[in-house]
Amino acid sequence: MTEPQILVPGATIGILGGGQLGRMLSVAASRLGFKTHIYEPGANPPAGHVADVVTTAPYEDEAALKAFADAVDVITYEFENVPTSALDLLDSVKPIRPNRKALAVSQDRLVEKAFLSELGLKVAPYAAVDDDVDLAEALVEIGAPAILKTRRFGYDGKGQARIMAPEEADQALKDMAGAPSILEGFVEFSHEISVIAARGQSGDISCFDPGENVHKSGILHSTTVPARLSPAQRTDAVLLAAKILNALNYVGVMGVELFVTSGGLVVNEIAPRVHNSGHWTQNGCVIDQFEQHIRAVAGWPLGDGKRHSNVEMLNLIGDDVDRIPEFAKDGAVAIHLYGKTDVKPGRKMGHVNKITGPA
Amino acid sequence: MTEPQILVPGATIGILGGGQLGRMLSVAASRLGFKTHIYEPGANPPAGHVADVVTTAPYEDEAALKAFADAVDVITYEFENVPTSALDLLDSVKPIRPNRKALAVSQDRLVEKAFLSELGLKVAPYAAVDDDVDLAEALVEIGAPAILKTRRFGYDGKGQARIMAPEEADQALKDMAGAPSILEGFVEFSHEISVIAARGQSGDISCFDPGENVHKSGILHSTTVPARLSPAQRTDAVLLAAKILNALNYVGVMGVELFVTSGGLVVNEIAPRVHNSGHWTQNGCVIDQFEQHIRAVAGWPLGDGKRHSNVEMLNLIGDDVDRIPEFAKDGAVAIHLYGKTDVKPGRKMGHVNKITGPA
Repeated sequence: MTEPQILVPGATIGILGGGQLGRMLSVAASRLGFKTHIYEPGANPPAGHVADVVTTAPYEDEAALKAFADAVDVITYEFENVPTSALDLLDSVKPIRPNRKALAVSQDRLVEKAFLSELGLKVAPYAAVDDDVDLAEALVEIGAPAILKTRRFGYDGKGQARIMAPEEADQALKDMAGAPSILEGFVEFSHEISVIAARGQSGDISCFDPGENVHKSGILHSTTVPARLSPAQRTDAVLLAAKILNALNYVGVMGVELFVTSGGLVVNEIAPRVHNSGHWTQNGCVIDQFEQHIRAVAGWPLGDGKRHSNVEMLNLIGDDVDRIPEFAKDGAVAIHLYGKTDVKPGRKMGHVNKITGPA
Repeated sequence: MTEPQILVPGATIGILGGGQLGRMLSVAASRLGFKTHIYEPGANPPAGHVADVVTTAPYEDEAALKAFADAVDVITYEFENVPTSALDLLDSVKPIRPNRKALAVSQDRLVEKAFLSELGLKVAPYAAVDDDVDLAEALVEIGAPAILKTRRFGYDGKGQARIMAPEEADQALKDMAGAPSILEGFVEFSHEISVIAARGQSGDISCFDPGENVHKSGILHSTTVPARLSPAQRTDAVLLAAKILNALNYVGVMGVELFVTSGGLVVNEIAPRVHNSGHWTQNGCVIDQFEQHIRAVAGWPLGDGKRHSNVEMLNLIGDDVDRIPEFAKDGAVAIHLYGKTDVKPGRKMGHVNKITGPA
């Protein structure tokens, strides 16, 4: 492994993406005395309100990318769908953490599934689908119901089509609009959990206690900590996450979503970044997932992941944000808003962390 | 009282002063979806790294003050020594919270002592000193040892001279450089505490549990929560703070420093702003003093001040910041650095909050 690069306070952390994750990463970086520089194609990004510098430019603007890389000490990202050409350019100037391998794996559902399977981890049955012949074969092998997903650029339920019966296959394939896809079988699970795991530059690993997730319409609705897990399941979850991080020589925080089944834990997906299901750590831990990520990227020691309080995290999606006056009256509720001006259905506007008691 | 003015997310809070308090106020404001606009005469202010907009201009620049006031929805401040002329101008454009009365009282040690005395609260014996005749009389009345302080613009032990015996009076008076001053008698106390108290726009009051302060060389060294106090003393402390806030029709967070003496609590001084001795709340409470202040200023309900953890806050003064690598290894320690580039003796570079157990 390479020599750890330790950033001292005053250094600048470059963040690709200026959404709410970048916003909360910026705040965490400020606590450690770092400045942040956001690179974001969209105007008025949420992270910009709390960042030292914002570059507004597309990922195809080579001059802007170069200037950004020159201005920062290390580069990290808040989402995994950064174009490869941009990464190639940035990579030649400053280190990107988490590394390119983690990005390559998580940018493609098929590559990700193959990687996890090779590690000996359980995943949903899957098959690559590029056309109607592939899909017909895959449906025979995996059966319906199943979900057809684009291999790349999917998030929050986008780029997905359920196939409840074989006759729905044609429509599902049309929904993919010709994009290389993957058919995934359904997994019978009792509930979903996620492990927010971190790995430092010296290879040390620290995991927060798994949270239990509830999704609605394909979007995370709530995360509750602690999750319903036996001690053995809890240990399995953490060891499994550590295995993934080690295999990738990973540096930073990763979100690992797992299905709890009667046959053990099945990996749903991994995200090479801070994760919505880890927002509870802001009010449950001394060092939250955002600071943990910054610490890893900066070569600092990791927090121990210990929890002082139990928490229920509730996402505020679209109109949910109208409930803020109600939440503001509850002294056990911490409000986290993202500074987004327009309320849209399905848009993540903020979240609340309700303290439910001491850990 | 005037109609509460409730700010909705997306509004901009103007902050006079761009130091560490402004920095942490900005971060707290971001959690509630507010933007901040910092007004600061000095270049590269710590708060600027996490603020949406920074105005760099002196308090005598009327055009800059006017533009700042026009651009924000409400004005607050991180320190009390803003010139009156600037406040007059700002006040005519946008509301200033906490109000002018709180500023007027706390900007002048003599006015403050008189105000507290009139409220029936105990303060150190004091007398106004404008010249050597006043000082001689005051020393007869109050006795030595005593402390001569400038009435205005003192902080962190600056603008103060101890008089251990009457023959030191001349030198002490010279140290004041002709500034109107106040002689304060020594108070025999066992320890010092402070109450971080908040009052909302609707008159509701919420106090954090008192912390116990230790000063070194006139600068706060540490605050420990809980403080050593009997239940009766704790109640006295909180009621006393509430009395001050009500008398000022105060909106925002105030730091109230108290001496614990055999004869009861004696008010040392009040600060009409978030206070160094309240930094522990960042890691001990769901809603910290910074968010509490923003909530009050924005007309939101206050947090209840409840503590989930016991905390020891330690200031990092000057070279103390070299201990960061050591602190970073302790999972019970939260680091808070201020983004200041130059380390100078006596300069507050950051603080750490060590969790010592559940509350």
